[in-house]
Amino acid sequence: MEKRIKKIFENNEKKPDAIIIKNSSEPFIDDNFFYVTGLEKGLFEGCATVLFEDGKAELIVSELEAESARKANLKTHIYKNTNDFYDIIIQITKSYENIGLNYNGLSVSEFNKFIKIFSDATLLDVSKSFFKSRLIKDETEINLIKNACKISDIAMGKISEIIHVGVTENELAAEIEYVMMKNGADKAAFETISSFGKNSAEPHYSHGNTILKNSDFVLCDFGACFNKYNSDMTRTFIFNSTNQKQKDMYETVLEAQRIGFDFVKPGIKAKNVHQKVNNYIDGTNFKGRFIHSTGHSLGLAVHDPGGGLNANCELELKENMIFTVEPGIYIPGYGGVRIEDDVLVKKNGLEILTKYPREFTII
Amino acid sequence: MEKRIKKIFENNEKKPDAIIIKNSSEPFIDDNFFYVTGLEKGLFEGCATVLFEDGKAELIVSELEAESARKANLKTHIYKNTNDFYDIIIQITKSYENIGLNYNGLSVSEFNKFIKIFSDATLLDVSKSFFKSRLIKDETEINLIKNACKISDIAMGKISEIIHVGVTENELAAEIEYVMMKNGADKAAFETISSFGKNSAEPHYSHGNTILKNSDFVLCDFGACFNKYNSDMTRTFIFNSTNQKQKDMYETVLEAQRIGFDFVKPGIKAKNVHQKVNNYIDGTNFKGRFIHSTGHSLGLAVHDPGGGLNANCELELKENMIFTVEPGIYIPGYGGVRIEDDVLVKKNGLEILTKYPREFTII
Repeated sequence: MEKRIKKIFENNEKKPDAIIIKNSSEPFIDDNFFYVTGLEKGLFEGCATVLFEDGKAELIVSELEAESARKANLKTHIYKNTNDFYDIIIQITKSYENIGLNYNGLSVSEFNKFIKIFSDATLLDVSKSFFKSRLIKDETEINLIKNACKISDIAMGKISEIIHVGVTENELAAEIEYVMMKNGADKAAFETISSFGKNSAEPHYSHGNTILKNSDFVLCDFGACFNKYNSDMTRTFIFNSTNQKQKDMYETVLEAQRIGFDFVKPGIKAKNVHQKVNNYIDGTNFKGRFIHSTGHSLGLAVHDPGGGLNANCELELKENMIFTVEPGIYIPGYGGVRIEDDVLVKKNGLEILTKYPREFTII
Repeated sequence: MEKRIKKIFENNEKKPDAIIIKNSSEPFIDDNFFYVTGLEKGLFEGCATVLFEDGKAELIVSELEAESARKANLKTHIYKNTNDFYDIIIQITKSYENIGLNYNGLSVSEFNKFIKIFSDATLLDVSKSFFKSRLIKDETEINLIKNACKISDIAMGKISEIIHVGVTENELAAEIEYVMMKNGADKAAFETISSFGKNSAEPHYSHGNTILKNSDFVLCDFGACFNKYNSDMTRTFIFNSTNQKQKDMYETVLEAQRIGFDFVKPGIKAKNVHQKVNNYIDGTNFKGRFIHSTGHSLGLAVHDPGGGLNANCELELKENMIFTVEPGIYIPGYGGVRIEDDVLVKKNGLEILTKYPREFTII
């Protein structure tokens, strides 16, 4: 992980002497803690790591996490209580004047404690250096994400076997997550979305007691979390029989995604990819029905920080960035279609990491 | 939810005119957003709610969440982009001088934006009023947690059917989560812990490729998330055949938990419960092997805020608080035993919400 830590310091204009990453309680765990330590197990609430320019790091962990922490092979301090924790932090950093903190992953309460204990030091916001570093995935990360994508592909391939008359959204979600975990996922990357009929018009609906009916949309959006790295994919099927409106919605989204794929390559601005996709949909009968961004960066977080394929993102795409490409059309009270894949930016274009077929399918 | 909002204002010494809850990106979603809106579906990244003393609330949500937000039946503003978002916030709060924010659920980056836009107002930390309110569960919350507990009880009851020679930790975790979801869980409350043998000595280990062996500890720690509310329970079994040391560890933890149960009642200080449990274990051959707190508050968060049964918590237990009681003994390289149940503080003692038997069991 030394390379990653060095990259974070290189990406910093502000030149901190040391960087502290501090976790609060769940859910306020800064995933950069895992980025720089490589730890794959453990919760690490209230724990911290201190990073140095030469790529070294030290851990400050509770007794509870001491056993989990050993796998990082880092110098590790074990604290007994909060006072103890801050004494250790002061001890490690006492000779430093400029302390970097990730303002994006630190609560105001935690920050106020640091202001108190570092009254003689200058605190610097280093969040942008984490964003910048994490946008470009290294080989280890790419392999973990590819593995997560493979797992979600397997689950997508099982859906036609799971679907039957009378199945509920809850049951479908249970089966999807089961297949992912049986195939090596540590957990679902996020609350699985398995929405039927008009529920599919609610992009972040998850699942409920709704029973599948003839001609329903079946929107499945899920991902696998594998060694802390995530996949995120969506397919929308039609159950049993369909009509022209559903077909039109689907083919429009499919073409929008194809256009998105065309523009994902080094040198293109993220916002331009979204513009092309959005303009295409707005030029059809479904004007105004694409109500979210075209995609987000993907990695340790499902919505990885640093930039995404949205209307305001000035980011220039570069090799080894990983994004989702996920246009959708949503008609409240009727239903929605979304098609989502994870793509790796390559020298001359992209590699689509989620392989499950995309064509219009009645199941 | 008006009652909850009023309670938050009543619990505030600082008397804010309005309180803003603002979500960042996942995982930095403030669960108080769901506490005050009652919303059960949706992710609500970048969304906010503004609360008023009379119990009213307004929502500011992205287009993406507009459909999900409708279920709250609150006045709802839909924003298109970040500038738009802050314009709406300013519009709603412009006549107010004292704005409350939850410093515990807000990142420093978000806070700095609020400092800019509220240059004429006073910003107040209202995190403690959320802690205080959420510690005491109302009837709706108690019923949701009871339901989550029932689901995890069902899963615990299936473990003896799942366990067989050659099963891996990953497979066991997959089956546990599957049973929970088939029985109504929206998702697992947290990454299921199914650890075999010496892995059980690592309290926050989750699961891996380890294959079950004769005489292994089988530590299962999991929970169900049901309409955003959680359960959290642990049982430790022994596979096939056992020895005296395992029995001693188990009986010590079981007695420690019984002592914990005895002291969970109104008027007792949280830290005293932990003291009693810890002193008991430290008076046995397993001195120093109980390396975490006796329990935590449980609710919308698995580790709900406001206090817990730990060495430093001065909180006085009150009716309708819900805690886990989960002593453990951990011997690195050998294994660990933890027994965990969720308990509701009642007028004259407690009600144990997770019912699965606790006696020493060879499976």
